[in-house]
Amino acid sequence: MRAAPDLAPGTSRAPGPDPAQDLTRVAAVAAAIRERIAARALVPGARLPSVRGFAAAMRVSKSTVVEAYDRLVAEGAIVSRPGSGFYVAGATRPLTLAAIGPRLDRAVDPLWVTRQTLEAAPGVLKPGCGWLPPSWMPDAGLRRGLRALARDEAADLLDYDEPLGHAPLRARLARRLGEQGIPAEPGQIILTDSATQALDLIARLLLEPGDAVLVDDPCYFNFRALLQAHRARVVGVPWTPAGPDLDAFAAALAAHRPRLYLTNSALQNPTGATMSAASAHRVLRLAAAHDALIVEDALFDDFEPAPSPRLAALDGLDRVIRIGSFSKTLSAAIRCGHIAVRPDWVDRLVDLKLATSFGSGRLSASLVHAVLADGHYRRHLDALRARLADAMGLTAQRLGALGLVPWLMPRGGLFLWAALPEGLDAAAVARRALAEDVVLAPGNVFSLSQSAGRHLRFNVAQCAEPRVFGVLARAMEG
Amino acid sequence: MRAAPDLAPGTSRAPGPDPAQDLTRVAAVAAAIRERIAARALVPGARLPSVRGFAAAMRVSKSTVVEAYDRLVAEGAIVSRPGSGFYVAGATRPLTLAAIGPRLDRAVDPLWVTRQTLEAAPGVLKPGCGWLPPSWMPDAGLRRGLRALARDEAADLLDYDEPLGHAPLRARLARRLGEQGIPAEPGQIILTDSATQALDLIARLLLEPGDAVLVDDPCYFNFRALLQAHRARVVGVPWTPAGPDLDAFAAALAAHRPRLYLTNSALQNPTGATMSAASAHRVLRLAAAHDALIVEDALFDDFEPAPSPRLAALDGLDRVIRIGSFSKTLSAAIRCGHIAVRPDWVDRLVDLKLATSFGSGRLSASLVHAVLADGHYRRHLDALRARLADAMGLTAQRLGALGLVPWLMPRGGLFLWAALPEGLDAAAVARRALAEDVVLAPGNVFSLSQSAGRHLRFNVAQCAEPRVFGVLARAMEG
Repeated sequence: MRAAPDLAPGTSRAPGPDPAQDLTRVAAVAAAIRERIAARALVPGARLPSVRGFAAAMRVSKSTVVEAYDRLVAEGAIVSRPGSGFYVAGATRPLTLAAIGPRLDRAVDPLWVTRQTLEAAPGVLKPGCGWLPPSWMPDAGLRRGLRALARDEAADLLDYDEPLGHAPLRARLARRLGEQGIPAEPGQIILTDSATQALDLIARLLLEPGDAVLVDDPCYFNFRALLQAHRARVVGVPWTPAGPDLDAFAAALAAHRPRLYLTNSALQNPTGATMSAASAHRVLRLAAAHDALIVEDALFDDFEPAPSPRLAALDGLDRVIRIGSFSKTLSAAIRCGHIAVRPDWVDRLVDLKLATSFGSGRLSASLVHAVLADGHYRRHLDALRARLADAMGLTAQRLGALGLVPWLMPRGGLFLWAALPEGLDAAAVARRALAEDVVLAPGNVFSLSQSAGRHLRFNVAQCAEPRVFGVLARAMEG
Repeated sequence: MRAAPDLAPGTSRAPGPDPAQDLTRVAAVAAAIRERIAARALVPGARLPSVRGFAAAMRVSKSTVVEAYDRLVAEGAIVSRPGSGFYVAGATRPLTLAAIGPRLDRAVDPLWVTRQTLEAAPGVLKPGCGWLPPSWMPDAGLRRGLRALARDEAADLLDYDEPLGHAPLRARLARRLGEQGIPAEPGQIILTDSATQALDLIARLLLEPGDAVLVDDPCYFNFRALLQAHRARVVGVPWTPAGPDLDAFAAALAAHRPRLYLTNSALQNPTGATMSAASAHRVLRLAAAHDALIVEDALFDDFEPAPSPRLAALDGLDRVIRIGSFSKTLSAAIRCGHIAVRPDWVDRLVDLKLATSFGSGRLSASLVHAVLADGHYRRHLDALRARLADAMGLTAQRLGALGLVPWLMPRGGLFLWAALPEGLDAAAVARRALAEDVVLAPGNVFSLSQSAGRHLRFNVAQCAEPRVFGVLARAMEG
């Protein structure tokens, strides 16, 4: 250990009253420690000399050492552990983020696909992901929207939004719902940061820990993750090409007395099936008979070639709560979802929204509103539907060539739910594909009963690259 | 049915190449349709003339009609049904939202001030609100940020963000924390939609229903609302000008075995007090002895004239979780908060974040990053501190003239916590002021023990208007 460069023993003095000299001494002590750290005489995690001991060694007052150590703490060079002393800061912290690699060792749980697809490095193909490639999204429209907001003197970019959320967007959403036969005043619409947050607020409002909730089997995997976060008892109902299996639905209502049933009635995730009008009527009657509520997640409605019977329209937002967002058709980078709900629940939901997120984003809502008001958005949707229909046909054909059989051919949307040939395990295939940088969505992440072990969900918009099918073929060979 | 006003048959021509004329024709066709709807020649739900037929009738090109119909769809006057045609929109719903008036009849509960201040109509003065007036916020900087994003080809405006949140912003936050002596890798920082959501995720991770949580009394009222939403048992500890009352803190730890202690250690809301270094050390030692965790809400740190001892720095993010956002200094319209936490809890928090909100907003984070990277932001903060100090002095003086006594003169920040003269009830005064369009923040909305019935929290930045004090004087007279 060598002496501090600026404070050789011979030059040190007893602490004097001169503040400038005090400052110099503090700086010198701090410099001495910094130098020892740089020279690795003190390694990360090492305990620094005690204040008393170092003051004696350096021939300065204890308060000078305390001040020097404080300064080093403020710099992040050392840390203080109360009651224990000072230690060299642990890390040679990089200022740039190391990429978070895929977690190959993680079990196939409800969040597996989410993580895999969100964390995928550039170049990884994601036929298993739940959204469109950025090149399919209205980039130019969004940039126009941003410029319009930057220009608009009247746009408030600074303040919190009102508790329900941006009024012009709520008025527009109410109008859209009206066109779909869903009677909602703007005051019945609550903006949220996402459809997921919308569902989360509803769960907070309606669920007690241990309450039963019915979901479709298979269903969107995040429904399970979210409901588990609320300590709900999640009960699956087999899903058929026309909606839930009605006998099983009735039996589950009777057996579990669920508080609510959560469903994607149109272009369901993962199967692409749509509830028939007859099923929708029967679901509503059964729910009424058992006093269960229904949450209808309308996330894929804008992909429908023609509107399907909506539970919220049949019911008139009495027993049905409707949620949605623009993440799939406009942008997932802008967080903006919504809830349409009976008027007497609005205040309680808004209180929960304020308590747990202090409101939704005015900027996001303003931007969504600006893009929707632009006539291009509707044309974007038309083009999207046509493009998806082409991709659906092509993907079905390519999967067929590998022996995968679609469960049904959806009327539209992103997803094709297909079964591997007998004897193959989708999770094993997905793991092998991941090793070749292709993220698949194995069926059991969607299935509460774990009865979809041979299925995979394909996002047809993410299947353009022929490499997807080459890797899939190899992964199927094992 | 009469012809469109600006496009009598005799004056129409075949479509020319002049874009200005095209725009006029589109406007004329749109106006013609609007007029028919207004005259009830086309009633809600009626099918519009086909594009081909209307183009012939109006002697314009089909593309002109298509563009006019698109414009009307964007306006909400008509709707498109793919494969079927265009229809008059169904609803006679008002397009503007009726303003949600103040709820005068609502009890003074933890959400009362939130609602009152968020719902305040233009012209209402809000000395009780918790944020700066928009005119104090960096509007020009934000607009520059929006334009920069719109221009930046590399900016992804479409896709979900990575699970932890925008990497460049996390790297910047890690650097800022490092400067404050808080050792956090970018991988220990999780972006959220707000500091409130940050706290909500932590509560989800750490709290079981019935768990005790210590808060300061008084404290930010939304802490109580949020913790109640988690069914926590909220226990108050008297707050002193130097931090929590340490004897009461120790007694509460022993009596209630709380899972965590939640505090604003710097420029506390509502009192403006800052925890002393001695208190911070003792709080950490007591928490360690009782195995309680600490959540340090750093929302007001950027208002400090000089950094105060931070629990997270002293502790090194072991027992302390730190949360914050830019809502108070940059914009509340952009939702972007953050958590800094020990590495081994990151994954579990991120899973909860994905399950309950499917990630934070890439656009908001990119915009915050763009503004922070702009040197103006630091100058904005310097100017803000100086302006707040002036406002603090002036407000204290004006309150003094009315007989209100500050509990202490804060080192900085927004808030002055002041007591009304003996015998006056702050809730009653607040109700009377509200009737004159001034929203005050009565002390008991911050106090778990309801022992702040004479106090009011004043936001000094919202006290510039002399009318605040005129109304306050009258409200005090009863």
